[in-house]
Amino acid sequence: MHQPIAILGVSGLPEIKCGADLGALVAQALRNARTEVVARDIFVIAQKIVSKSEGRSVRLDSIEPSARAREWAEAYDKDARLVEVVLRESKRIVRMERGVLISETRHGFVCANAGVDASNVEEGTALLLPEDPDASAARIRKTLEASFGVSLAVIVSDTFGRPWREGLVNVAIGVAGLAPLVDYRGEPDSHGRPLRVTVIAVADEIASAAELVMKKKDGVPVAIVRGFDYDAREASGLELIRAPELDLFR
Amino acid sequence: MHQPIAILGVSGLPEIKCGADLGALVAQALRNARTEVVARDIFVIAQKIVSKSEGRSVRLDSIEPSARAREWAEAYDKDARLVEVVLRESKRIVRMERGVLISETRHGFVCANAGVDASNVEEGTALLLPEDPDASAARIRKTLEASFGVSLAVIVSDTFGRPWREGLVNVAIGVAGLAPLVDYRGEPDSHGRPLRVTVIAVADEIASAAELVMKKKDGVPVAIVRGFDYDAREASGLELIRAPELDLFR
Repeated sequence: MHQPIAILGVSGLPEIKCGADLGALVAQALRNARTEVVARDIFVIAQKIVSKSEGRSVRLDSIEPSARAREWAEAYDKDARLVEVVLRESKRIVRMERGVLISETRHGFVCANAGVDASNVEEGTALLLPEDPDASAARIRKTLEASFGVSLAVIVSDTFGRPWREGLVNVAIGVAGLAPLVDYRGEPDSHGRPLRVTVIAVADEIASAAELVMKKKDGVPVAIVRGFDYDAREASGLELIRAPELDLFR
Repeated sequence: MHQPIAILGVSGLPEIKCGADLGALVAQALRNARTEVVARDIFVIAQKIVSKSEGRSVRLDSIEPSARAREWAEAYDKDARLVEVVLRESKRIVRMERGVLISETRHGFVCANAGVDASNVEEGTALLLPEDPDASAARIRKTLEASFGVSLAVIVSDTFGRPWREGLVNVAIGVAGLAPLVDYRGEPDSHGRPLRVTVIAVADEIASAAELVMKKKDGVPVAIVRGFDYDAREASGLELIRAPELDLFR
């Protein structure tokens, strides 16, 4: 048998406020719990606490909804100010039908409501995605590496829906120190013939694995994935976005 | 800290032939490696070995391609017989452009090439998805539960692409003994307000977690996910398919 992979939930973080040094708080929570950190551990951090620490919260009473936002909100019983925030965070609308708003965010992610979240945040506010999730991941990585004196990788994750399949899955939106895609193209299969396209989105799979211990409701916004043999290079979560010209579903 | 989740790769299986009792072979491999099996372990089994054991292999020289298959194959330098197999396995074509064929399989899965695989299989053959992946999972579960005398869950997995994001991820196509979706709708968030839609596709996340130890090229077609607290009910992988009338991308 091979070395198993372990997924550890990290809890005991305080409520995250604007300006919080997330890396330092995670390090402190681990020390409090006497949890060891091992070289090449992958930290998966929920977008929500990253956004909170970066002050990506918007007060809805400061938002003047456009006519388009008001119309949509009225048709589908939504908060027009929230719809307005979603439209402002969107570079392009992919679908806006039957109460579902799928758009491309400024970063290029295609997801529902441009990643804007109004649940589990302060009443009357909405939480935006981090401005630059790769930079967020890199910052947290730097603090954690300095705290523990080992090389680490960090993924900032969010739960996205997907076409054709029910339910959300956790995916990587920001990455530091880990190649998000592993390319098996061209390597021979076990019959010695070249494999066809087999590029695996390991960063998304790691984020999904982490979600199994995070569980939205239980206050476990950080997980450690240990034992996965990854390519520790400089990288970006944007590598996981399919180029629009190659995408048949935009 | 919470109980960690462990992901164990199971190797040491022989080459799987038509008629093989997959559950018995997996049990034997675990005994050979002296790997313990624990109640509520989740076994994730790669579709490829399930299909092989069920004889879902098609000899391409037995296939007479239709005009449509020949035309498509010629335009994109593909094997017309393979295209014909894909078309026959498809209930409906979702996209057929730029050399990419996305269709809805007989089961209802939307994926590339109707899940038909020509890599890592015997030369001149193509491998189809299992006829009924839930039944495959249930059969393997029954054998494993009888072998080890504990309650278990089984997921049959395959790697699927997705719109908007690069790379494939492992998903669940057949399920036995585990609710594939966990519904957090209506449960209050940490501010006491009801959460909005938060249904997590845990079976897909478990399949993705398993892929991290499976690694296509390394001959680890089975993984055990241990320590995830799931709802052990009768279930189906078809629950993961979004109803066509609710799907904005078909």
